[in-house]
Amino acid sequence: MARAAVLIAEGVVEAREVPIFEPEAGGLLLRVVLGGVCGTDLHMIHRLANEFPLPIILGHEGVGQIEKLGDRMDRDSAGEPVKVGDLVYWSPMVACNQCYTCTILESSPCTEAAHFAEADQPSWCSHADYAWLPRGMSFFKVPEGASIDAIMALGCALPTAVGSIDVAGAIKFGETVVVQGAGPVGLAATLVAHVSGAREIIVIDNNDMRLERAKQLGATATLSLDALSPDERKAAVMDVCGRTGPNMVVEAAGSLPAFPEGIFLGGHNGRYCVAGLWGAAGEIPTTPRELVLKNFTVRGSMAPRPKYYYHALHLAARMADKLPLAELITHRFGIGQAADAYRAVQSGEAVKVVIDPSIP
Amino acid sequence: MARAAVLIAEGVVEAREVPIFEPEAGGLLLRVVLGGVCGTDLHMIHRLANEFPLPIILGHEGVGQIEKLGDRMDRDSAGEPVKVGDLVYWSPMVACNQCYTCTILESSPCTEAAHFAEADQPSWCSHADYAWLPRGMSFFKVPEGASIDAIMALGCALPTAVGSIDVAGAIKFGETVVVQGAGPVGLAATLVAHVSGAREIIVIDNNDMRLERAKQLGATATLSLDALSPDERKAAVMDVCGRTGPNMVVEAAGSLPAFPEGIFLGGHNGRYCVAGLWGAAGEIPTTPRELVLKNFTVRGSMAPRPKYYYHALHLAARMADKLPLAELITHRFGIGQAADAYRAVQSGEAVKVVIDPSIP
Amino acid sequence: MARAAVLIAEGVVEAREVPIFEPEAGGLLLRVVLGGVCGTDLHMIHRLANEFPLPIILGHEGVGQIEKLGDRMDRDSAGEPVKVGDLVYWSPMVACNQCYTCTILESSPCTEAAHFAEADQPSWCSHADYAWLPRGMSFFKVPEGASIDAIMALGCALPTAVGSIDVAGAIKFGETVVVQGAGPVGLAATLVAHVSGAREIIVIDNNDMRLERAKQLGATATLSLDALSPDERKAAVMDVCGRTGPNMVVEAAGSLPAFPEGIFLGGHNGRYCVAGLWGAAGEIPTTPRELVLKNFTVRGSMAPRPKYYYHALHLAARMADKLPLAELITHRFGIGQAADAYRAVQSGEAVKVVIDPSIP
Amino acid sequence: MARAAVLIAEGVVEAREVPIFEPEAGGLLLRVVLGGVCGTDLHMIHRLANEFPLPIILGHEGVGQIEKLGDRMDRDSAGEPVKVGDLVYWSPMVACNQCYTCTILESSPCTEAAHFAEADQPSWCSHADYAWLPRGMSFFKVPEGASIDAIMALGCALPTAVGSIDVAGAIKFGETVVVQGAGPVGLAATLVAHVSGAREIIVIDNNDMRLERAKQLGATATLSLDALSPDERKAAVMDVCGRTGPNMVVEAAGSLPAFPEGIFLGGHNGRYCVAGLWGAAGEIPTTPRELVLKNFTVRGSMAPRPKYYYHALHLAARMADKLPLAELITHRFGIGQAADAYRAVQSGEAVKVVIDPSIP
Repeated sequence: MARAAVLIAEGVVEAREVPIFEPEAGGLLLRVVLGGVCGTDLHMIHRLANEFPLPIILGHEGVGQIEKLGDRMDRDSAGEPVKVGDLVYWSPMVACNQCYTCTILESSPCTEAAHFAEADQPSWCSHADYAWLPRGMSFFKVPEGASIDAIMALGCALPTAVGSIDVAGAIKFGETVVVQGAGPVGLAATLVAHVSGAREIIVIDNNDMRLERAKQLGATATLSLDALSPDERKAAVMDVCGRTGPNMVVEAAGSLPAFPEGIFLGGHNGRYCVAGLWGAAGEIPTTPRELVLKNFTVRGSMAPRPKYYYHALHLAARMADKLPLAELITHRFGIGQAADAYRAVQSGEAVKVVIDPSIP
Repeated sequence: MARAAVLIAEGVVEAREVPIFEPEAGGLLLRVVLGGVCGTDLHMIHRLANEFPLPIILGHEGVGQIEKLGDRMDRDSAGEPVKVGDLVYWSPMVACNQCYTCTILESSPCTEAAHFAEADQPSWCSHADYAWLPRGMSFFKVPEGASIDAIMALGCALPTAVGSIDVAGAIKFGETVVVQGAGPVGLAATLVAHVSGAREIIVIDNNDMRLERAKQLGATATLSLDALSPDERKAAVMDVCGRTGPNMVVEAAGSLPAFPEGIFLGGHNGRYCVAGLWGAAGEIPTTPRELVLKNFTVRGSMAPRPKYYYHALHLAARMADKLPLAELITHRFGIGQAADAYRAVQSGEAVKVVIDPSIP
Repeated sequence: MARAAVLIAEGVVEAREVPIFEPEAGGLLLRVVLGGVCGTDLHMIHRLANEFPLPIILGHEGVGQIEKLGDRMDRDSAGEPVKVGDLVYWSPMVACNQCYTCTILESSPCTEAAHFAEADQPSWCSHADYAWLPRGMSFFKVPEGASIDAIMALGCALPTAVGSIDVAGAIKFGETVVVQGAGPVGLAATLVAHVSGAREIIVIDNNDMRLERAKQLGATATLSLDALSPDERKAAVMDVCGRTGPNMVVEAAGSLPAFPEGIFLGGHNGRYCVAGLWGAAGEIPTTPRELVLKNFTVRGSMAPRPKYYYHALHLAARMADKLPLAELITHRFGIGQAADAYRAVQSGEAVKVVIDPSIP
Repeated sequence: MARAAVLIAEGVVEAREVPIFEPEAGGLLLRVVLGGVCGTDLHMIHRLANEFPLPIILGHEGVGQIEKLGDRMDRDSAGEPVKVGDLVYWSPMVACNQCYTCTILESSPCTEAAHFAEADQPSWCSHADYAWLPRGMSFFKVPEGASIDAIMALGCALPTAVGSIDVAGAIKFGETVVVQGAGPVGLAATLVAHVSGAREIIVIDNNDMRLERAKQLGATATLSLDALSPDERKAAVMDVCGRTGPNMVVEAAGSLPAFPEGIFLGGHNGRYCVAGLWGAAGEIPTTPRELVLKNFTVRGSMAPRPKYYYHALHLAARMADKLPLAELITHRFGIGQAADAYRAVQSGEAVKVVIDPSIP
């Protein structure tokens, strides 16, 4: 038996014993090294978003060490050979490659994707001693010598930022970028803009500690959501970006008012990458004429395709010695203290919280 | 002296005598053959949109015959030689090619573009006996033997649809398209979808006569805005487009509620081409999360670049004998009856209204 | 036991009895309705291209009726439910979705794809009474009432043309296109250009009968490879396309000299879709400076992704009553006469040859 | 009167006195601060490429100080206000904005572009005391405090690399790039790859000194053209880029054999940016089947649009204090010693040679 952080009922998480399963053919069994805690875990705990039957194990971000390989499983999803003992990073979705979205749109999310299994079933969830990856789940070998902390520091926010910015039109060197929000998605977007050669990267948040982190990852300016009015933020953005405004705005705030402000801040012929709002149900007044007058593009996206997990993994591994990525992890908890981990995320004090099963 | 339809004050149009000017170097003087009436003329008459000093001549759509060529003017904006007597079609904007939007963004509208001159000045406006095209204004020779009526039938709505659909991601053969609104922009979008090989083209409007025209131009289905609820329209669209919904929605309604409905109707991974809302100021509640859940793209656009006028001209000329384009012109008036022309557009009875200076 | 056309040795084909296999889990067993003969079958018979161990069953194009479904197989690769008795069309490659090309490049061909099994093994080949589709092989349900002849008329040349033109930059309405070669790929490219709204489609071949077919599928002009010199062909193309030459050239000739001629014929800023040369090994003198002077793009492609099989299937089904697609099938043979079928293709007399297992 | 380096006859350059002209309306007169020497100057001196009537002034790269503004000239081509005394950088082509290439293709080079005037006429050439920019010529204000040396260090090779890489598909962070040639275009491509976040940048040349410069600008590896065979270079590239080969190859060698080698080195689904071959007339055996097997794209390009001069200017200005750009200038000559300047370029000893009119 192994331990796992299990959501029992709305708001109630317990460390429980769960069975360990043999890998299926084409699948593998991992011993979890680190599991990241994501805002989505809180959504689930508070039953805000998708409804899954309880109890379920939490955690969809992780790095693990291969414990056992199923039959016919000898390479990762990029064709790299793998063996017992290798470290791997996985994507929390199984594409069926047999639905209209997968095959014809070549998009995501797979309409047949199984997401979360019940706690006593085989599960790929990461807040546990073991993760069981089914056949068809994407996973990638961690490059030799890479920092696990750096890889987990931004969690699934990094593939989210990598993918959503790419589909919204990749940032080119010399472009000007505004990032709304300095949580994990915003910090990840800042990193992506930085490595893409953006000339200006302006990050907006109301948390000074997070804005400080944004600067360490490449932000060239930060704006306080509290200290400045929307018009002052607009003026500050125009002052830095000049001419016709920023080339790209990235919505990473997950808050409804960010949406009209993103359109307001956006530049002529600019594009607006909306990545954070998947959890924010509801309506907000919007001025569609602005899109027309600015020849503006808004692109929503969620559920990054597996290639973006691959690119995110390699980006984090490569940048680990150039930028203070690993230091983004501010809190670590064992499985037994998982409830504290979620509280730390909730409080807003943490940048990144991880579950480390080796902590007793 | 020549005659022109002049806006004197809000709501007041008169046929007046205006001077005829010699063409400037690099420019030309046209005798107007047909001038189209556009919804924007009504916006101007009712002083709803941009504020121009009065009096001004109305009309920004036209075909004219070259009366005189200025110095160093011997070919059109696509390099085709021109001479006195040739018929040409012009775009109502002069790009400076010397501003950030023109040169660096390669977009539009030119931030330096002069729009409307006062009525006693040289003017390229088309509800007049003569149009005076300045140096740098784009114009294109009408192909030999082309139907002038077909070219004017959709007016500037055709370059608008051609351009906005192109920048929103050109329609590919086999795609499914929804067009919101069957006014000139909607009919033009229907035509563009049809010649692009769209599999399904569903047009929505509350005017049965216009929906009938849409069918003649390629609509494969029409939906009544009055007879069906939004949910029924959604169901009808999904029924026809199948799977994950339409590949593209074109907003050509110019009405604020069209915007959230367009997002609602849009398909997974789809794109929303917003072309008609430039005149519709104001806010409307929108659900940004839908953009995220659908991996959806919204692209606003206005002020088509000159190439789209060229493509529109040639499209109309080519299709004139295959589709009842010319028949879209339902009303013709002389300059002296221009006020009646605007009333005909206002009434909603007309499909397309033109000013023909040869009508006494 | 069932019959199959089996390649025994270079140039030697025999109808043989082969075992019928039960479908595997996730796979299915088809009774073949029609199997198309493709130039690639000749390549294989003459051992010109890829070397496969013999004996193998021939045929990689087919429509079949579902005879048996394997476990957990109840929908096609686009998510459409399927049942015993349904007609389906399949793509002759299995993507592993677990190699760098599949997952990270999202391209093809899958580097792990199994191609041809030996004749006494389960095989998806189509010149046989039964085809056995393994788990993961893409197949699509034939739309209700669609003409099987129309679907098979262009064989795998249709997904090839659909895919290669798409990746080379889809043809937009009003564009001008030159197609080199009027074999199946050239005819398929002509069809794609036609349904995409191309203004001019010029097809070049030395076979008048094929050029006549091209006209039926949408060619607006044809040029004889024999009767005209390269300079005359160039002049004819420029005469029709005007200005700066054609927007796209499609190489569908599969002959080395076509390559430099395609670059020669290509227009300024144009694109060259190279689809037919995969079987033509060897070198040909080329003038790279022409690519530079014309700001020209050359795009090679092979192995269309599954979505292009889907789009090709639906295109053929949709066009069957508008264009003489089914009539492209000029020869039909039973499995026992398969060797005659290959000779008919070799001779150049046929447009399309099919194997119909119901012919005794 | 002013001095200029004038090409009198093939191979014969003299410093001559030439008239100074007043700026025309919409144009301006510059005092040249630095004029770069480019390989194209040698082409012209040896009458290898385009034939211009002699005598002509040499030099098409330059930074100058505004001496006089013509009527109606008060801002640069990006809309930035300019005044006498400002430093500007110009593009050596005037787009007519009135030909098919300019207006409809939105490409280059303008088919009406005037290139070089005779030496006793107004000329925008830069190896002279003054440059006379006609109306419509693109020029951009040098950012405050920018290093003129850094801006001139790569000359027109920088806009060439910026533009050709952009049209070939901009380099994304994490991509792998091979650059063929370490002359100015190759060094500029290295810089562009570096600021775009390329993971690996492999530069190939036979000149160790130039390869050393490439490393300073971001090359992660260099390969000797002399010391390694083509197969060894291929092996080295695959070793570094892994998997399926490099994402992009940039041809900056200007030598015919580079072309087939570039295709050989290119990766699966990769793109080949051909920028250097515009001067290399002639044929070279090529294997088109490779393009097909690799799903490969080749994009030729020349004559970067004005926006690329703008982006190049700002890139150089921004990078001047991070990379040893200015140090690329290895030789400086006065106008009187221009012939020595061309010899220095010819010799291959120089990295960048400039003409500085202030040198007596």
